[in-house]
Amino acid sequence: MSSIWGNNIKLSIFGESHGKGIGMVFDSLPSGEFINWDLVNAEMVRRAPGRDKFSTPRKEGDKYEILSGYFEGHTTGTPLSAIIYNEDKRSQDYSKTKDIIRPGHADFTGWMRYNTFNDYRGGGHFSGRLTAPLVLAGAIATQMLQRKGIVIASVIRSIAGIKSPGFETADPDNDDLLKIRKSDFPTFDKQAAEDMKAAILKASAEGDSVGGVIETIITGLPPGCGSPMFQSVESQIASMMYSIPAVKGLEFGDGFDLAAMKGSQANDSFVIDDKGKIKTTTNSNGGLLGGITNGMPIIYRMAIKPTPSIAKQQVTIDKNNMVNTTIQVSGRHDPCIVKRAVPVMDAAAALVILDILLGCGSMYNKMTI
Amino acid sequence: MSSIWGNNIKLSIFGESHGKGIGMVFDSLPSGEFINWDLVNAEMVRRAPGRDKFSTPRKEGDKYEILSGYFEGHTTGTPLSAIIYNEDKRSQDYSKTKDIIRPGHADFTGWMRYNTFNDYRGGGHFSGRLTAPLVLAGAIATQMLQRKGIVIASVIRSIAGIKSPGFETADPDNDDLLKIRKSDFPTFDKQAAEDMKAAILKASAEGDSVGGVIETIITGLPPGCGSPMFQSVESQIASMMYSIPAVKGLEFGDGFDLAAMKGSQANDSFVIDDKGKIKTTTNSNGGLLGGITNGMPIIYRMAIKPTPSIAKQQVTIDKNNMVNTTIQVSGRHDPCIVKRAVPVMDAAAALVILDILLGCGSMYNKMTI
Amino acid sequence: MSSIWGNNIKLSIFGESHGKGIGMVFDSLPSGEFINWDLVNAEMVRRAPGRDKFSTPRKEGDKYEILSGYFEGHTTGTPLSAIIYNEDKRSQDYSKTKDIIRPGHADFTGWMRYNTFNDYRGGGHFSGRLTAPLVLAGAIATQMLQRKGIVIASVIRSIAGIKSPGFETADPDNDDLLKIRKSDFPTFDKQAAEDMKAAILKASAEGDSVGGVIETIITGLPPGCGSPMFQSVESQIASMMYSIPAVKGLEFGDGFDLAAMKGSQANDSFVIDDKGKIKTTTNSNGGLLGGITNGMPIIYRMAIKPTPSIAKQQVTIDKNNMVNTTIQVSGRHDPCIVKRAVPVMDAAAALVILDILLGCGSMYNKMTI
Amino acid sequence: MSSIWGNNIKLSIFGESHGKGIGMVFDSLPSGEFINWDLVNAEMVRRAPGRDKFSTPRKEGDKYEILSGYFEGHTTGTPLSAIIYNEDKRSQDYSKTKDIIRPGHADFTGWMRYNTFNDYRGGGHFSGRLTAPLVLAGAIATQMLQRKGIVIASVIRSIAGIKSPGFETADPDNDDLLKIRKSDFPTFDKQAAEDMKAAILKASAEGDSVGGVIETIITGLPPGCGSPMFQSVESQIASMMYSIPAVKGLEFGDGFDLAAMKGSQANDSFVIDDKGKIKTTTNSNGGLLGGITNGMPIIYRMAIKPTPSIAKQQVTIDKNNMVNTTIQVSGRHDPCIVKRAVPVMDAAAALVILDILLGCGSMYNKMTI
Repeated sequence: MSSIWGNNIKLSIFGESHGKGIGMVFDSLPSGEFINWDLVNAEMVRRAPGRDKFSTPRKEGDKYEILSGYFEGHTTGTPLSAIIYNEDKRSQDYSKTKDIIRPGHADFTGWMRYNTFNDYRGGGHFSGRLTAPLVLAGAIATQMLQRKGIVIASVIRSIAGIKSPGFETADPDNDDLLKIRKSDFPTFDKQAAEDMKAAILKASAEGDSVGGVIETIITGLPPGCGSPMFQSVESQIASMMYSIPAVKGLEFGDGFDLAAMKGSQANDSFVIDDKGKIKTTTNSNGGLLGGITNGMPIIYRMAIKPTPSIAKQQVTIDKNNMVNTTIQVSGRHDPCIVKRAVPVMDAAAALVILDILLGCGSMYNKMTI
Repeated sequence: MSSIWGNNIKLSIFGESHGKGIGMVFDSLPSGEFINWDLVNAEMVRRAPGRDKFSTPRKEGDKYEILSGYFEGHTTGTPLSAIIYNEDKRSQDYSKTKDIIRPGHADFTGWMRYNTFNDYRGGGHFSGRLTAPLVLAGAIATQMLQRKGIVIASVIRSIAGIKSPGFETADPDNDDLLKIRKSDFPTFDKQAAEDMKAAILKASAEGDSVGGVIETIITGLPPGCGSPMFQSVESQIASMMYSIPAVKGLEFGDGFDLAAMKGSQANDSFVIDDKGKIKTTTNSNGGLLGGITNGMPIIYRMAIKPTPSIAKQQVTIDKNNMVNTTIQVSGRHDPCIVKRAVPVMDAAAALVILDILLGCGSMYNKMTI
Repeated sequence: MSSIWGNNIKLSIFGESHGKGIGMVFDSLPSGEFINWDLVNAEMVRRAPGRDKFSTPRKEGDKYEILSGYFEGHTTGTPLSAIIYNEDKRSQDYSKTKDIIRPGHADFTGWMRYNTFNDYRGGGHFSGRLTAPLVLAGAIATQMLQRKGIVIASVIRSIAGIKSPGFETADPDNDDLLKIRKSDFPTFDKQAAEDMKAAILKASAEGDSVGGVIETIITGLPPGCGSPMFQSVESQIASMMYSIPAVKGLEFGDGFDLAAMKGSQANDSFVIDDKGKIKTTTNSNGGLLGGITNGMPIIYRMAIKPTPSIAKQQVTIDKNNMVNTTIQVSGRHDPCIVKRAVPVMDAAAALVILDILLGCGSMYNKMTI
Repeated sequence: MSSIWGNNIKLSIFGESHGKGIGMVFDSLPSGEFINWDLVNAEMVRRAPGRDKFSTPRKEGDKYEILSGYFEGHTTGTPLSAIIYNEDKRSQDYSKTKDIIRPGHADFTGWMRYNTFNDYRGGGHFSGRLTAPLVLAGAIATQMLQRKGIVIASVIRSIAGIKSPGFETADPDNDDLLKIRKSDFPTFDKQAAEDMKAAILKASAEGDSVGGVIETIITGLPPGCGSPMFQSVESQIASMMYSIPAVKGLEFGDGFDLAAMKGSQANDSFVIDDKGKIKTTTNSNGGLLGGITNGMPIIYRMAIKPTPSIAKQQVTIDKNNMVNTTIQVSGRHDPCIVKRAVPVMDAAAALVILDILLGCGSMYNKMTI
């Protein structure tokens, strides 16, 4: 039971939010991959807290140090490792509430899993802060994929119940997608975006939090990637996405709506287009049939639960005295994690797709832009 | 990229729907597990086709032969293998439409993945028939878990858009759950069940098909099972469930509804009940926090797309002549796979939970009923 | 802890020597590989018992049935599975000595590992018979490799202390190696071979057994295959070879002799030959430096212990009555397993090399003969 | 193809000898393990260079920093990570000979494997320096095992052909073994030790190097650990030991000598001793039958080749100009690595045994001292 992911790449994530540092080892990367650190830094900034009033005022430096696997501008092919030292941590915030279980967090389950040895400070290894090394690794994977013509982007589909259109409706091209990746609050409906921001501020003012839905698109994958059954693309994406704190739902293509459709509606018809390319006329299956890419964009949505840290009083227990009590979670927390989760989803997607492409048959090597 | 699943158990599934046989190797089972074959057979019958007018009239014998790993009534601890020979297959049904891609199926993606070497007959390795060995393995896991006090059951939450209540509303006890496992059409609302059946027959008459939603509950797991990040219980369940053909959505607890809730609603409050046991007052998180069990029932729902094989005429392509064409899928197919998917979901859940319990710390050994 | 091997291919071996059957699932093979079954059968015959007086008179049919993964003459890319039904087994041979631990066998350790649930008959899952599916899988891998210009062969270096020269001395070309693969008793010294055979017959007459050393060569691998540290070619070969019953030693290149050499002797000098190819003037390192191929033949030797089943009286225990006793192992056993181990070593080597070539960078796809 | 090892623990090793630092992530450790850092430091010192005239005068600080997975004196159960910053590196030593392939090293194979992107300085990821994080992880495993009554020790059996007795002859008890672990030059024959040291100094004076044989013993393991076939204890030990640079041979029990023995000699007879314990009268099989422990000490020997870095002139090539040339490896190198390899072997053994004990059935949890 490990914090290591991947079949063809192996990503190991380590650290606790209030320990000395967090980091990652990115094993089995090909050698000779050029890394544009500006692109990496841009992704780290997208994820970083403390940038506006919609997220926590906590300043996480997120400065990373590359220790190995990188030499004269390129990957060496040996494990690429990085450390992000923890700064601006206020462990004393947590010590006084050490025994009071925070509802919605992993305090209780971490205690049950690791007994009294769990590092409870700020969520420890369960902290959302552990997504920083994930974004770092994903930013490297992203540029490797872009050099093969694969683009990944994510938009906010809803926050606090306020909805905004998705990729199927907006039908962006790759240039649009690259712009979306630079957006601070990526949505296809400006009014909805304003309403979402207002809802976040309102929840924050009430000492509460809100959640939302993020949609991710992956374009440029050739048909034939993935495998049947246990190595379906859906299985691999899901195993990664459900590793990200707060994800509680995941659906591909028309997802749960498919359950109410007829076969004649849900089956995407195949046609040969005027360039002689095989495609489907619709994309209800989200680019995946039998667990394998069909050449259409992969599209999926994730449900993000509201941030569990809220200032409002909540009923809970004191585990030391084994009595019922209440808690108001103080500290500096995000009233809504959705916006900051967007680059995490992009990074996570890139890691999965890179892993699949480096798989059997080595689609990665065959691809040229 | 393999048809092998598991960290602590290893399940290998093999076979094509129209080859000589399909089967499984169930590796790393503990030794000394008694197997009640009547319970296994009951599960195989639940999944088997040809039993009523709601499913395909195809008769799959599904008679299995245990080849190894079983001696004098118990598992030996060495790989338990089983074969199910293919009978009542009509390969000629497929030869004439060999080049016509069936929409919604893996015909196109299997061709892209495996080139002309894919066994196209009846879906080959992508066939839903491959769930038979999964049910066989799962039925063994199920009884191992029941001896530890863990019960798994699934109900139909919707078919063709007709809804029926879930476990949270019905609040069944373990005896109820065991009865649900024996139900032929497990639902908590009899009228809804009748409406669903009518919708299936109507779709069938129209040469069409319908999908639905299945909800699974897992009770009896102690708190502290699973791990953070990549080995979260959600990740492990998801990697398995998305291996099952037709699954296109998966949500835990309140799932996508969480995205519209406030933190104060979504955070399940902890309380110490009058027996001194820690529990939560609600279960919006579906029994899982930080990827680890909190002792509440694990609850999740899966979206099942409508069966892609339909008699209605569909637009598609002839891959040999590379021209657009149409297809009417003849043969004997399920107008709705949801009912037959229920025991598959139960089996798949049992395999995941057994894998987790046999994991580090070996919760499995420690548990007594 | 499983009977599954491989990183890029996954080979699952199952079965007990006196159960219904044994077999294998060969997962993650590329699609479109032609299989010449005559070549497979030839390997199965090489391993089969009962062919001459130097091995057991037991007749193992070793007829296999391919169940899946093979269609119209080629691999499909989905799991290729095969069963070998057990015939000519005499389980009653074992029942009377059920509680008497056979020295040198896995009777005691199997009992400790699996408790009373171990299938003790004929060694169960520990039986040398389990090498039959290994040879089957390896015979497929062998022809895949030969199509890439890679040839594997093994010779007997010693039996009962009688020595015979190895590949370095004999310096065979690829045609010679292919002939060696067809030899019934592959040795480079005819007189030594006769002496070895005499020693086997003498040991057999005395109710005793003898062991030996096998040397394997692998030619045609390009430089750059393998990885540093845990995925060194040595590590991967060793993990496979030590899976084969009776192997108790393994050394690469000059092996243990290197320990007494000086650096100036052991370091293989690099030179550019007259064709502009980089090679080493000697091959003390057995074709491997830093765990990676250097383009020279890979050469290694394995120590095979004498067959533990002997007719001579041996001191041992009765585990049921927990008393000291004696045993004379009756039944039909090999006085020397070395000769029959040769094709097993060839098969095992082919599986390792195929796994490595299908690894990252997919050397396999790039290679042409 | 990764620098990650283990089934139940996962050890990731990263770094290059002349990069910023090296380190390790030790994943899936149980929580609550107390770590005695003095014991860890003692092991680090045993491996460290620069301590006497028998090894390199290079001073590697080997000061490590624990970043995560450790809290209030104990393991947390989440990934334990450590960095060792590289100091006293002289990269300019290597730049001028960048294109001259050092014989016996991984310069050529690293170039072939990773192309021009390989970090060639000081062996890069192939450097023996990478054994420092292995010793760190192993020192933690060692104390966990000692708390379960398992003791591991290694002695030098030969250097430059000068032999010294092994554990079978010396028959040490556990207290003796713990003393051996503290010895600077562990041998059972003082005169042989002096002769070995003289041989090392002589080789050094000649600009040459020598190799040797190390023997490791593991006591205290209960019978029944390990698994048949691919997870045999031999396979697992071998896959680890062949990851250590310079290891070219490995034999268990009587190893290659078994090949010349008769079955009646090689079969270790079982007896019930006067305490009612089952044991074998001899230990030719090195504590392992059928890949599983039989309760006797595990004993194996490894051949260590002479250090490839020698001052003597050697024939080699210039890869940039593709011409034959010569090289004299300057820099500060060990004339014999055997002495410093001893703690590496101890550490590596501890990691394998911990992995096995944490495996299925979780022998680790059941054991008490």
